[in-house]
Amino acid sequence: MDNRLLEFIEQYMPLTEEEKIFIDDLNIIRSLKRGTVIVEEGDTIKDAIFVLKGCLRSYYIMDGEEKTSAFTTENEPLILLSGDDPNKTAHYVDSVEDSIVTLGNLEMENKTVEKFPRFEKLCKLISEQLLKKNASSFAEFKNTTPEQRYINLLKNRPDLLQRAPQHQIASYLGIKPQSLSRIRKRLSKKSSA
Amino acid sequence: MDNRLLEFIEQYMPLTEEEKIFIDDLNIIRSLKRGTVIVEEGDTIKDAIFVLKGCLRSYYIMDGEEKTSAFTTENEPLILLSGDDPNKTAHYVDSVEDSIVTLGNLEMENKTVEKFPRFEKLCKLISEQLLKKNASSFAEFKNTTPEQRYINLLKNRPDLLQRAPQHQIASYLGIKPQSLSRIRKRLSKKSSA
Repeated sequence: MDNRLLEFIEQYMPLTEEEKIFIDDLNIIRSLKRGTVIVEEGDTIKDAIFVLKGCLRSYYIMDGEEKTSAFTTENEPLILLSGDDPNKTAHYVDSVEDSIVTLGNLEMENKTVEKFPRFEKLCKLISEQLLKKNASSFAEFKNTTPEQRYINLLKNRPDLLQRAPQHQIASYLGIKPQSLSRIRKRLSKKSSA
Repeated sequence: MDNRLLEFIEQYMPLTEEEKIFIDDLNIIRSLKRGTVIVEEGDTIKDAIFVLKGCLRSYYIMDGEEKTSAFTTENEPLILLSGDDPNKTAHYVDSVEDSIVTLGNLEMENKTVEKFPRFEKLCKLISEQLLKKNASSFAEFKNTTPEQRYINLLKNRPDLLQRAPQHQIASYLGIKPQSLSRIRKRLSKKSSA
């Protein structure tokens, strides 16, 4: 078994041998080739997706244009978002590079928590952390100019700039590719001045 | 006891008499006069704030200007966000109108879960719901123009437009008060055309 999942969980709590075997038996690890679309708009939401390795991108298609809303990388759960129908995803997810993910579902989660109740606390902790991270990013996005957002990305997630194409990064920053080019030129002038 | 808290919890699970008395004894309900600042930038994060009635506003002060990042109203938990120091809030919270809130802390939460383990599941559910809501709002914000954001606010949270002053609404939408005025004029022309 790929033990990234166990390593991730053990950051929060050490696992017993019995728990490790149980998780292994869930058989939820999947490999994805770069470019694989794993979720489409309108799909019924049933899976909980967690990235062990690689990079997934969540995007909406609006007026024929892809709008990147999130990148999910190592050790991050991916949040599937619904639209008017709370049971169906409102967006797409594809793999920006070859990736390894876990695909769980609610039934598995219930089974796990029933057998090992302390996993409930783990799930709660992870979703609380993710909530704070997400709310912080949102507040930051609202209170910054596109240029500041790019500088923050450069500081906080520099790897993304290498991993994803420029037009996806631009739309993730809420701007047009041309604006991103202008920002980069302006900053490189500043730093060489 | 103000029973809004019990009513809120009972949307998720019916409570026993023993649980109700326990929650009552926690003595966590507070009344706030309009304009009370209950959290300041740099405060140690210890409370979990939940709004039972009224409206709280989270805001940053940047270059001397207040930037509203969130409004929290009836039956919503308020997320306190940290900055570089994970133990200190990076923003302020005040009450936009007379409000009733609960102020819990981690110690109380642990005590409650220890006595009634099923509360762990409740906390997990609430934070998962909040996470989805927050991530949806973020994705929407990123993919919409200021005018669309205003139209969405009008549709989804029309009460906010009555409850908070225009300059707070403008900054919540990530725009200047003048831009909000222009958007409102444009829309009122359209609707009267």
